[in-house]
Amino acid sequence: MTPLVPGELSGHPVWFKLDFLLPTGSFKDRGAAVLVSYLRCQGYRRLVVDSSGNAAAALAAYCAAARLECHVFAPAATSPAKLAQARAYGAEVTLVEGSREHVAATAQRAATADPAAAYASHNWHPVFVEGTKTWLLEVWEQLGGRFPSACFLPVGGGSLLIGAWRACQALPGPYPKLVAAQPLACAPLVQAFERGEPDVSPVAPATTLAEGARIAAPPRGRQMLAAIRRSDGWVEAIDEDSLVDTLRQLWRQGLYVEPTAALGAAAFRQAVARGRPMPAGEAVIVLTGSGLKTGSLALE
Amino acid sequence: MTPLVPGELSGHPVWFKLDFLLPTGSFKDRGAAVLVSYLRCQGYRRLVVDSSGNAAAALAAYCAAARLECHVFAPAATSPAKLAQARAYGAEVTLVEGSREHVAATAQRAATADPAAAYASHNWHPVFVEGTKTWLLEVWEQLGGRFPSACFLPVGGGSLLIGAWRACQALPGPYPKLVAAQPLACAPLVQAFERGEPDVSPVAPATTLAEGARIAAPPRGRQMLAAIRRSDGWVEAIDEDSLVDTLRQLWRQGLYVEPTAALGAAAFRQAVARGRPMPAGEAVIVLTGSGLKTGSLALE
Repeated sequence: MTPLVPGELSGHPVWFKLDFLLPTGSFKDRGAAVLVSYLRCQGYRRLVVDSSGNAAAALAAYCAAARLECHVFAPAATSPAKLAQARAYGAEVTLVEGSREHVAATAQRAATADPAAAYASHNWHPVFVEGTKTWLLEVWEQLGGRFPSACFLPVGGGSLLIGAWRACQALPGPYPKLVAAQPLACAPLVQAFERGEPDVSPVAPATTLAEGARIAAPPRGRQMLAAIRRSDGWVEAIDEDSLVDTLRQLWRQGLYVEPTAALGAAAFRQAVARGRPMPAGEAVIVLTGSGLKTGSLALE
Repeated sequence: MTPLVPGELSGHPVWFKLDFLLPTGSFKDRGAAVLVSYLRCQGYRRLVVDSSGNAAAALAAYCAAARLECHVFAPAATSPAKLAQARAYGAEVTLVEGSREHVAATAQRAATADPAAAYASHNWHPVFVEGTKTWLLEVWEQLGGRFPSACFLPVGGGSLLIGAWRACQALPGPYPKLVAAQPLACAPLVQAFERGEPDVSPVAPATTLAEGARIAAPPRGRQMLAAIRRSDGWVEAIDEDSLVDTLRQLWRQGLYVEPTAALGAAAFRQAVARGRPMPAGEAVIVLTGSGLKTGSLALE
């Protein structure tokens, strides 16, 4: 269980859920632990993964702990530093030229061709989300058996958000409003939500420090929109200046997180600045990834 | 409380104490949290620190959380990446030319000249060790109210070792044997122990991947020797090849630690390889620092 600690943003008290303290340094450990256990029980000896960052590290780590082989397919442009952690856990890493979608297709083909291997996608495997939902179950427990009034969280592929919605369905309400934050540079969910559309359309992403949320065509767009709307939540798109400023504010409270992890906090600050009425009760901000992964890049 | 998890080394079952999962990524958080709280209660508004690594990050983080200013004095040769974390927490960093001892003296002078400032040395302040001892108190609790039979731990300045001995004095025995590991490249404690001397003499250190244990003249040498002898423990000096090989073995179990943190595990393996009879019962290996800090350097 990761700590839930009190803090402050824009003069308001908030709670921070410190998921960057999970063993590999990101919330992806929650999904990876459950998915790797599940696939091992199914008899697989090797997992095939496509990721360029935290998911690769998490799946590689839990494969190592479970004595399974792990094969990571990553975009050719991925920086070697981001893959060093997965390699350290013993994963084989293959760089693939082309789009993110092509990388995923290559991984799927490799898994299909090998009967001992499973394609362990954090982006679509339902068991990954079963693990991810534990973050909000823990918050429920840490608040003495109830939900907070609102949760502010980064959204890329959306497993954190969909996990939150699953947690809501598992326990009695009232439920928290789920507030999804994306970088303005890549905000397909925000665009679809604000247009009132039922599904998310791909966007052309610009560059952003919030690399983990740079997913132009999230596969679970429809589910994400439904979760936000049914929770009575909303969306915020964060520009790069706000992101850096929020990152600084977190760091100066002793919370050393990576840029993507600051999106939820930035969304809270932006909502306050816009004068949006905040629900009474606890606001929980999920901090998803460690600053030790990319922190020093941010303010250079 | 950090996890105590079962694992394996050289075919033997062991327990790993995962202190690299503390908030700033090293065991130094234990001492920093208690020392910063203590000095804040004393009315200080600014802490002056000398460190080149994990202690600077830990003290800067807890100062940030406590709204105290933090001024870090570091050797001029310190790599900027190691100081990025302390800077992120808002610490002022001053690089000082000259020896490690000269850096410490400069920090002390700065603290003395400023009535609002305290010199918060992790190397000698007794309250720092009061915090550090919690690692073994936690192990006692995690084993159901008793000590393990042996603890294998890295030793540089020695706060982890002296903390362990304080924990022994706080609870009923039998106590664990304390086994101190140092890099062969800088092993003043091992040298003094093997020669039967009452105190540690400075050595001329060679380079080692275990940077955190490269302390040529540890200020608490006499205390360290007494703790090891009174616990019926021993010492191991680890060469660089063993260190890298052990690091790999830890990583391949999903334990991504920095090189210094692998010293305890390397000492266990070396003792087994030498045929040293191991005490019956649990062997606990303390893993002190995160691989996200320096991990990718090690195997290049």
